[in-house]
Amino acid sequence: MKRYGFGVDIGGTTCKIGLFQEDGTLMEKWEIKTNKEHQGQSILTDLTGEIQRIMQVYGLSATEIMGVGVGIPGPVEMDGTVNGCVNLGWGRRNVPAELEAVLGVPVFAGNDANVAALGELLYGCGRGKNSLVMITMGTGVGGGIVDNKRILCGANGAAGEIGHIIVNENETEHCNCGRRGCLEQYVSATGIQKIARRHLEQGKEETVLTLENVDAKEVFQAAKSGDHVAKVIVQEVCAILGKAMANMAVILDPEVFALGGGVSNAGDFLAEEVRREYKKYVFDACKDTSIVIATLGNDAGIYGGMGLLKENQ
Amino acid sequence: MKRYGFGVDIGGTTCKIGLFQEDGTLMEKWEIKTNKEHQGQSILTDLTGEIQRIMQVYGLSATEIMGVGVGIPGPVEMDGTVNGCVNLGWGRRNVPAELEAVLGVPVFAGNDANVAALGELLYGCGRGKNSLVMITMGTGVGGGIVDNKRILCGANGAAGEIGHIIVNENETEHCNCGRRGCLEQYVSATGIQKIARRHLEQGKEETVLTLENVDAKEVFQAAKSGDHVAKVIVQEVCAILGKAMANMAVILDPEVFALGGGVSNAGDFLAEEVRREYKKYVFDACKDTSIVIATLGNDAGIYGGMGLLKENQ
Repeated sequence: MKRYGFGVDIGGTTCKIGLFQEDGTLMEKWEIKTNKEHQGQSILTDLTGEIQRIMQVYGLSATEIMGVGVGIPGPVEMDGTVNGCVNLGWGRRNVPAELEAVLGVPVFAGNDANVAALGELLYGCGRGKNSLVMITMGTGVGGGIVDNKRILCGANGAAGEIGHIIVNENETEHCNCGRRGCLEQYVSATGIQKIARRHLEQGKEETVLTLENVDAKEVFQAAKSGDHVAKVIVQEVCAILGKAMANMAVILDPEVFALGGGVSNAGDFLAEEVRREYKKYVFDACKDTSIVIATLGNDAGIYGGMGLLKENQ
Repeated sequence: MKRYGFGVDIGGTTCKIGLFQEDGTLMEKWEIKTNKEHQGQSILTDLTGEIQRIMQVYGLSATEIMGVGVGIPGPVEMDGTVNGCVNLGWGRRNVPAELEAVLGVPVFAGNDANVAALGELLYGCGRGKNSLVMITMGTGVGGGIVDNKRILCGANGAAGEIGHIIVNENETEHCNCGRRGCLEQYVSATGIQKIARRHLEQGKEETVLTLENVDAKEVFQAAKSGDHVAKVIVQEVCAILGKAMANMAVILDPEVFALGGGVSNAGDFLAEEVRREYKKYVFDACKDTSIVIATLGNDAGIYGGMGLLKENQ
């Protein structure tokens, strides 16, 4: 009877909605605008409206729906209560309860980065595995941890905040979190840009990179083409990441590390360099842990939403 | 019917056995010698013999026994298979299957440090909580992680090997694991002794500590009495530990950090200093995480064995 599920990824700009078959096959996906006006009060109403519309189009009744799994860009407690979400203008609210009241199907919620990690484990680069650590390198560095096919949520919803592992005690600049020397300050797109600029300011060697235009994407492209300065920058970045991953390995010992986010578009060139650096620092028992590029891209969130339904079956 | 459980802690010198009521009340405990001769081949036979003897003394039949939970000093996979145990002379073996065949009751096994952490969560300093990270500071530094009342085991049985988080990239001496700069090199009893000796060799200030006899216990005693050199040493040790815990907090975000092992006999004096240092480095969301001294001492293992029965109920 319960043959379909909805995976939802609420973002600051759009809400993504995926309709899935029970086995995780994505049938169709939609996007609606996230309306943040008036403390984002219409976001959930817009969402239930769209889900009801989709059910009507597909001729689906509530009895055929396993439920709705939702990723939210803020801290989410174990029962799905959102403990405030600055991005959306929300205070504390119980999203599953609110959606269930309207839709009449089970609803589960989790932090978006954690939910994306679950998506990659169940339907992406970690398919068939039990545990995965996802490292999302975008403007910042996010993360999600899945162990035994369940999201590690944490007492304060802060588990998997791996962008804020302190990796450099001598850093003088502040991270967005107010502290100094966080992983995010070095291996995010902005962090890589900053490291690149530092190298270019020294300007000792010839390079295709220019101080004015350099960004993370350009650094990886130049490194792939053999530019020596770019290769040195990539190695410095991957060494910082590889060391942090080696430390995560003796804490979590996952089967897979998945690299996601815009920086991971550098592909296997990045993964190979991270593997090399990881192996220099890792505890022997964890030396063969798989390090791969995430495969679901922007759909990891909706797949993970579907994963929440599986996790709670 | 199932009103009793056995918790077993297999160590390199003795095997501890506890008989528990279903609610976790310890009724009585015993110790037998761990016979490591002939690759430890009699250890399990000795253990089943002792358990059968106890059942006879108490007039217990298998139908009244929930099972036996066993902690083992080596890597244990999720199904309880021991992947070799150098301490006991064992190769790979399925301990639960071997014990079940003789005793006719369910048997569960886990790594001893992980099992002790479960014991502290369910019956010790973490009672009533869901998640706990245990840091055992003895000759080395061991650890165990419990999330959502379940042990985090890891793909290679290496989860919770927190003594091998690299905290100092500039270290020149090697850790037992072959790498350099592991947490264990600074906050174990031997690590504290080494730090103390380094301070005393500089010998600039008056102190009750002497280079010849200094050990971790003496350092904490002297610091409690107000000895300035000892206080500086304690602060250095607690800063290293507090920073590592702050990094664990953004990965695991546990409700409780439990400090155990011989070094933790320094009691709340230690906990207070660790709390102070932790707060200097921690991510804001995790600033109120509880940091306490473990309360079960050497019985954490048998309580944790009983915990395995609860975990698998």
